[in-house]
Amino acid sequence: MNPAQLAPAILVLGPPLVFRAYESEFTKKYNFLKPWETPIPLKQFISTCSANVKAIFCSAVSPVTAEIIQCLPELTFVLASSIGVNHIDLLECKRRGIVVANAGSTFSDDVADMAVGLLIDVVRRISAGNRFVKAGVWPLQGDFPLAHKFGGKQVGIVGLGNIGLHIATRLNAMGCIISYTSRTMKPQVPFPFCPGINQLAANCEILIISCALTEQTHHMINREVMLLLGNEGIIVNIARGAIINEKELVKCLVKGEIGGAGLDVFEHEPNFPKELFALDNVVLTPHHGAVTEEACKNLYDLICKNLDAFLSNKLLECETVYL
Amino acid sequence: MNPAQLAPAILVLGPPLVFRAYESEFTKKYNFLKPWETPIPLKQFISTCSANVKAIFCSAVSPVTAEIIQCLPELTFVLASSIGVNHIDLLECKRRGIVVANAGSTFSDDVADMAVGLLIDVVRRISAGNRFVKAGVWPLQGDFPLAHKFGGKQVGIVGLGNIGLHIATRLNAMGCIISYTSRTMKPQVPFPFCPGINQLAANCEILIISCALTEQTHHMINREVMLLLGNEGIIVNIARGAIINEKELVKCLVKGEIGGAGLDVFEHEPNFPKELFALDNVVLTPHHGAVTEEACKNLYDLICKNLDAFLSNKLLECETVYL
Repeated sequence: MNPAQLAPAILVLGPPLVFRAYESEFTKKYNFLKPWETPIPLKQFISTCSANVKAIFCSAVSPVTAEIIQCLPELTFVLASSIGVNHIDLLECKRRGIVVANAGSTFSDDVADMAVGLLIDVVRRISAGNRFVKAGVWPLQGDFPLAHKFGGKQVGIVGLGNIGLHIATRLNAMGCIISYTSRTMKPQVPFPFCPGINQLAANCEILIISCALTEQTHHMINREVMLLLGNEGIIVNIARGAIINEKELVKCLVKGEIGGAGLDVFEHEPNFPKELFALDNVVLTPHHGAVTEEACKNLYDLICKNLDAFLSNKLLECETVYL
Repeated sequence: MNPAQLAPAILVLGPPLVFRAYESEFTKKYNFLKPWETPIPLKQFISTCSANVKAIFCSAVSPVTAEIIQCLPELTFVLASSIGVNHIDLLECKRRGIVVANAGSTFSDDVADMAVGLLIDVVRRISAGNRFVKAGVWPLQGDFPLAHKFGGKQVGIVGLGNIGLHIATRLNAMGCIISYTSRTMKPQVPFPFCPGINQLAANCEILIISCALTEQTHHMINREVMLLLGNEGIIVNIARGAIINEKELVKCLVKGEIGGAGLDVFEHEPNFPKELFALDNVVLTPHHGAVTEEACKNLYDLICKNLDAFLSNKLLECETVYL
């Protein structure tokens, strides 16, 4: 018997991409329960092992509901492989005194790079140009439509946490004019604060969504915000799909009521509106903002540190007690 | 008769994209000769109007050869709509005392933005992700291959002029580690100088080509340089296609001897190697680095200033006497 199997059981939900990438290393060190390896439905799987589960390790899209939590009387720790924790029932965790930890700032810079990449791509029509060239149209058709200048653009950052600040710094170096909205004004930040999303949208040509998904931010980017941004406006989302009202976004894009979008996240991943397929002014990536080989290695190290700390009752490397 | 037609004749070659975009404005102000509007072959067209042509206004890809220059005894000014002037026979211009002007730094920041956009796209697999999502593969196939981290990459800038410096500043803000090679070391620059291209390639993971195309830089990026860069190395070219030995580049990409490429320019535009069509790690754009609506307007203003200065024997806004 693998000595790791004698250790407290950790239920893996998802599984997180980092788990699949480092499965053999993880399995040597910890006693993971992997429901996807059995044909038993998840609920039944959980009920059979409920007495042993001390911790959950979950991906960004695997819900940790009150129902799951209530099945696990010994649960004291939920560890997310993501920065966002909207998929975890934080109220129930708080009620039970369960500690919740996320991936901290492991990959804030990677997510910021993706936001910048998506934005340049939409503004300068890079993916569209790539399609134009690779389809062999250039020699036949000649001119490709003009794109817009990147520098000088008014960019509104929605949520100026770690990631938002990385984005702002990068775009500032490229000559964009930054302002932001956030729950609170950040006194040390050199960019102007805007108290509300409508005002930010009205004053900007680009909105970049980098806030957490909460009850307050759910569908915060609605039709009214999009119309204030205007028909040349661009929305980039590297946070969570449901911060935008996706149905309204699709309508606005199809009707040309906004100018374009760069989206790494969607409301119902991996599914998303097929109407966006044909739009040249929309660039879509499969929720890979945080996922690079290097970030995955860093995340593996952080997860191990946190699990080791949890298992030996030490302080977590990255502890977040929400609410 | 339009009063502009009484003014000295300016032969337009190409025509430049800015000319097509602002043709009606241009035509009101200047006496342009437009060979593409007649069925007469160019050589014959030039010989019929040779006595009147005082100036040439040319695009980046329309050659101004010694033969053309020799047909035009009254020619004293060649105005390029581009930054690069490799398509103009500068020796012949010098011999004749013909002034050559380029587009100066009108769109250095736009070209730099394109370089950064192409690089993020290749490193973070944005166009590839976009194809993956839009082809509907995500829900069926699940994981998209991991990309690489952008921050911390060793980037070598080949040619640290105005554009190269804009690129360096942008990538520095994104956490890349910059070094450069150039004809001469730039004492005011905070990045380390590398005396030769081979040494730069050996020390870097990414090369960005932002130098002029000259006899010295023609095919400077050869197989040896590519192998020194290595099989994870990435080349971005926003300068001129022929600085890279394109045949060797294609071979190295197809064999996986280098890791990827982002190319806005090609050796024989608008034609380019079809072998690159299928490669996910190659992003191609149709020589649009300098071309945005805003840059086009700025360029129109600059061209008018230079033509007005030339026609009234005043100093040019942007004069470049080469060689």
